[in-house]
Formats: sequence, C-alpha cells, structure tokens
Amino acid sequence: MSYQSEQNTSTRILMGPGPSDVHPRVLKAMSIPLVGHLDPEFVEIMDDIKEMARLTYKSKNEMTFVVSAPGSAGMETCLINLLEPGDEALICSHGVFGSRMADIVGRCGAKLRLVEAEWGRHIDPDRVRDVLKDSRPKLVAIVHAETSTGVLQPLEEIGKLAHEAGALFLVDAVTSYCGTELLVDEWGIDAVYSGTQKCLSAPPGLSPISMSPRAVEVITNRKTKVQSWFLDLSMVKNYWEGAKRTYHHTAPVSAMYALREAYRLVLEEGLEARWERHWENHRRLRQGMEAMGFEFLVEEGYRLPMLNAVKIPGGVDDAVARSRLLNEYNIEIGAGLAKFAGKVWRIGLMGESSSENHVNILLSALDEIIN
Amino acid sequence: MSYQSEQNTSTRILMGPGPSDVHPRVLKAMSIPLVGHLDPEFVEIMDDIKEMARLTYKSKNEMTFVVSAPGSAGMETCLINLLEPGDEALICSHGVFGSRMADIVGRCGAKLRLVEAEWGRHIDPDRVRDVLKDSRPKLVAIVHAETSTGVLQPLEEIGKLAHEAGALFLVDAVTSYCGTELLVDEWGIDAVYSGTQKCLSAPPGLSPISMSPRAVEVITNRKTKVQSWFLDLSMVKNYWEGAKRTYHHTAPVSAMYALREAYRLVLEEGLEARWERHWENHRRLRQGMEAMGFEFLVEEGYRLPMLNAVKIPGGVDDAVARSRLLNEYNIEIGAGLAKFAGKVWRIGLMGESSSENHVNILLSALDEIIN
Repeated sequence: MSYQSEQNTSTRILMGPGPSDVHPRVLKAMSIPLVGHLDPEFVEIMDDIKEMARLTYKSKNEMTFVVSAPGSAGMETCLINLLEPGDEALICSHGVFGSRMADIVGRCGAKLRLVEAEWGRHIDPDRVRDVLKDSRPKLVAIVHAETSTGVLQPLEEIGKLAHEAGALFLVDAVTSYCGTELLVDEWGIDAVYSGTQKCLSAPPGLSPISMSPRAVEVITNRKTKVQSWFLDLSMVKNYWEGAKRTYHHTAPVSAMYALREAYRLVLEEGLEARWERHWENHRRLRQGMEAMGFEFLVEEGYRLPMLNAVKIPGGVDDAVARSRLLNEYNIEIGAGLAKFAGKVWRIGLMGESSSENHVNILLSALDEIIN
Repeated sequence: MSYQSEQNTSTRILMGPGPSDVHPRVLKAMSIPLVGHLDPEFVEIMDDIKEMARLTYKSKNEMTFVVSAPGSAGMETCLINLLEPGDEALICSHGVFGSRMADIVGRCGAKLRLVEAEWGRHIDPDRVRDVLKDSRPKLVAIVHAETSTGVLQPLEEIGKLAHEAGALFLVDAVTSYCGTELLVDEWGIDAVYSGTQKCLSAPPGLSPISMSPRAVEVITNRKTKVQSWFLDLSMVKNYWEGAKRTYHHTAPVSAMYALREAYRLVLEEGLEARWERHWENHRRLRQGMEAMGFEFLVEEGYRLPMLNAVKIPGGVDDAVARSRLLNEYNIEIGAGLAKFAGKVWRIGLMGESSSENHVNILLSALDEIIN
C-alpha cells in the first residue's frame, strides 16, 4: 500500500491559482511543537495575527481575525452572518467565485439579485447603478480578483454606489490580498475575506476576514441564528476577542504558526513594495508571453498581476502541455475553469512565486514545449 | 510590537483535552514544500488518507474522507447533510458536545428530541428506548467520548435501538478515535466524525468523517440543498472520490501531510496496541491520582482512558494550580467546562501524550504543587 511509504512528493514550482510557493521560514514555523489553543502564549499569537491582518487589510476594524478553514469558508462566513432569510443581496458575478457567492445567498434563504458580466470582463459600475435604482439590497458583493478569469475588478465606485443605496459592501479578496492594492477602510469595504495560499504564501486552510463597525452592527442585531454553528461570528468572536477568550472550536495551531510567519514576511518586505513586486513580475511575464505569441484573455487595465489568464495557442494540447510542464519541469500552472477548460491557462505569480526566476523558468520551459 | 519577534513559544507538555503532543515525524511532514492541491501526487496523498481513515474507523465505507476544518465542523457536516428542515433528530446529550449537536439540529430547521443524562453520567439505553416508542427520528446521535465530562458512552445497544426504529446512528468520536475501541461497521454506525488533535496526535484543523451506504443514500435523496456550501458533501465528495477529482475548495495541503504521517504512526503501532496503551496509561494515572487523594468524576466502567476528569481537591485553587503547572512545569491540563468550571480538571492522555513519562511528570508536579 502506498501509505506505507514515507512521503516523497516532488519539489514543485507552484505557478497555478494557489497554493503558491511557501517560504522556508513559514514551513519551519509548522515544525515548532504545539502549545495549547487556549495557552496564553497562543492567545498572543492570535493577537499578533489580528494585528497583522489589520495592517495588511489597511483597516482599523476591531472585528478582524481568521476563520479556521479555507477561503471558501471565509466567503460563507461573511455571507451567512450578514444575511437573514428574506434579505436581498446583490451579487456581482463575473466568474466562478461570483457564482459561488450567488449559490450561498440561496442557501441563506435570501433573495438574489444578480449583475453579471461576461467571463473575462469586469463589472461595469453603471450596471450596478441601474439595479440599485429599483432595489434596496442589504449588501452588494463582488470579487476583487476573479481567480477563474484573471480580472482585476475596480472597487471604489461600486462601493460608493452600495453605500448610497444603504447597503453593505462585501469584497472577495482571496487572490488580491497582499498582491495588489487593497484599502479596506478607504474604499468603504464592510466585509472582506481572503485565503492564505495566494499572495500571502502560507499553506491553504485559513481565511482572514475583517468586518466594519457597520457590518458588526448588522451581525449584532440579527433576529435569527446564523445557519452554521461553526461559522457563527457571534460565538467565534469570543474566541478571538476580549480579555478572556472563550472556547469555541480548536484553532489549527500549526497553521496559525505558519500564518504568523507569513505575515511577518509580508511586513518585512513592506506591503506596498510587495504589491509593486507583483506588478513588476506580471509585466515581465507579459512581455515574455507576448513575445512567444500568447494573448491575454483580459483587456489591458483590468488584468490581475498575480493571476495571468492566457489563451492556449492553436495547435497546443492543453493536457499534454500542462502535464509536460509538471512532469518534466516540475512546474504547476492552472487549467481553465468551467467554460474556459481547455481554452485558457492561469499562470500564478503569487507571493513567493512572484519572482523574476519564476517568470524565467516558466518562459524557458514553455518555449521548449511549444516550439 | 510582539509580531516583530520570531516565534518563541515554550515547549509544553500537552495533557489537556487537545491538542496533544505531536510526534516529530508529524511536525517534520509539515515542513515539506507543498505540491498543488490537484497535483496527481496530492491526490495520491488524499487516497492514502482515505484508506488509513477506513482502517482506523474499522469500516469499509466508501464515503470516508476528511473535512478541511476542525472536529466541530465535522459534527456540523454530518448533521446538516443528513437532516432537512422538518426532520426529527434524537440527540443524546450528557455534556458540552451533546448540547452542541442539539444546537446544530435547531439551525437545520429540524425537530429536536433530547435524551439527557446528568453531566458525568452516561446515557442509559432504556431512556432512548422509551423515547423511540413514540417517535420516528431520522437519526439518533450520541457522543462516544464526552470530552467535557470524561464519560465513555457504550454505543452498541443504542445503535441497535436506532436501527430498529429505522433511524440512522450518528456518533461523535472526536476524542475516542484511535484511543479506544471504535468499530464503525460492526457497531452499525452510519455517520461518524472525529478530530485530528486528540488520540491521532496530529495538529488540530481537520475532521475525518465516514458515512455508511445508508447515510449516503439519505444524502443522495435530499430534497433540499444543504445549508452550507463549504460542508455540502454532494460537492465535497467529488473532490475526494472518483477517477477525476473536481475542484471544490483548496484542501489544507500541509495539514494533510501531517495527517498522513500521523496515520502512519498509528498503523505502525497497531490500532489495537494503541487502544491498549491508552488504557494502560489511564490505569497508571488513576493509581497515582487516587494515591494522592484525587477522586474521579465518573463512575468506574464508564471512564475514558484518554480524558480523565478528576475533582479538584478542597483547598486547591484551580487557576493558581493550573497556572503553576503551566508556568513552572510547562504542563497543560484542561480546566472544567461550563458547570464543572473550577470544580474539575481534565487530564488528557491522548496519542503521543499517553505515555508512562507523561503520567510520571504530571504526578510529580501535582505532588509538589498540592502538598
């Protein structure tokens, strides 16, 4: 049986949609023996993480902590704590993750209003303005960096429209967080979630979230219980906040060690410098890919720096090429999702995987495979 | 700011209700660089984990895999996938975790029937028999090892009663799993969940679950969507099962590395030998504690081997004593929960923390503190 063998995984170069390469300091942090999850020393680690989450979200939000599950659980946490049955939610959807939000809205028993854009395009704020003329949703939600299409969605104008309509503004920052400008307080974002395995370059499994005082008020004034016990922020917050922490669930101690170290690396580099690094390597990749004849899926000005969606050139077999990249070069890139399957590649330059060397390695390998 | 310092946590001896001490091989596994979560090599790791989960659950259940979140999310996964609004659920509650199940039943919109026992006592099957005379619940749920009280709950008779009444039998095995006999198939358990940070001695954060074919049929024939997207097994299963795996969420790769290694350690020791080790060290602890004048909370025959609830002797200040254990001896034991706060200690002998040395270290320290 294969489980009888010691783990012997290959040393991959992770250039897909996440996880990204993890810094040795972060890997090492997980080999530190565990303390208890209510140990005063662990509470201090949780407090450090909260503080660094605030710094990286550019937010003063008191309710800023980490859901003990991956980014999709962060998405669910935000939606189900803010929505009650019968509420209306306006979801802007231009890819897989917008559709996922819409699905969760239904599971909340809330009414769904949908503004859609073609996959690969951004959401035009005028479309949102139109819908808000005849509706009063409790929240407007949108994906900042649509990982399925590579679109960078401008947020400020839609945030203003949401607030003018009296709605909360909820943002999915799973892929953008720590990789490009994201100003939670300045942009009026009321609820935001992310994941750890993208531009933060920690292992997957945790979801940093932040809620504005307005969002906290909505949560506090709920009339019904949140449908999930595990993700009910009215209880989770007593585990993360206050002088005396109350047991809710058992936090993933080792994963928190890793997250703390990953945040430290972000702050040592400087958040703004990190954003700029992601842009620089995106430009490098773009130049090389275009020289090789690749076309980007997304129009200029709306492209993500950390997730580059390129059209697979005619005559290139998707599965064969990706499999050669993986098996001959140890490079992982992302396949196209849903309607882009077989048509698009998603090249991640996230966190530790956003480097000149990563760009060069991939360009060289692609050149050998395709030509 | 404290986050600017390198992590410098103390080397604790974990003898509380979990996490337990983690073997260096498991810690080391997490320092292995990550592969992608859809990498064929990761799929193989997932398959190894499924296989070892079946071996340790003593089950042939096809639907046996790991929820990407802690044990409480495993509890929620089982309940919300099996229950639909209007269904009736019989919850046997004799501690914190039974109450938690009851809470979740309410959030499912299901009707709750409760059989309660005093905290520190087990559930008498006759009580269940009585309730089943005038009700036809969809499931009967019970906690095998009630971590809040130290009670080992006999399961077989209640399982039979559940089946005779046409109900599914759901078991919380968070603390019992890999620490005392648990025979999922032989005892007719239809749904079971556990955690990784107890007798498995992996870090917290994952929840192995297993569903019988009967339970799978119930899930397949649901009329309504599961209220949680993240925990919806109809989707999660396509990530864990079948020839072609479909992306659902991103699995916590490093945590899975750790779990695989923890399972390997269990199987190298032998599951039955591991159960026996837990019982041996329980007897050792008991002898020493009783010699010091401690009384166990639970009557003999119903005591857990891995979680020993003892009454705090008169004249001993709970907080002071536990704080001295932690700060002077680096030993963590568990406080009493809820109505047992200040009255009971919970001494964990779980997984790597179930050893003669652990017992001796604790007895010596307690002797110095108390006398």
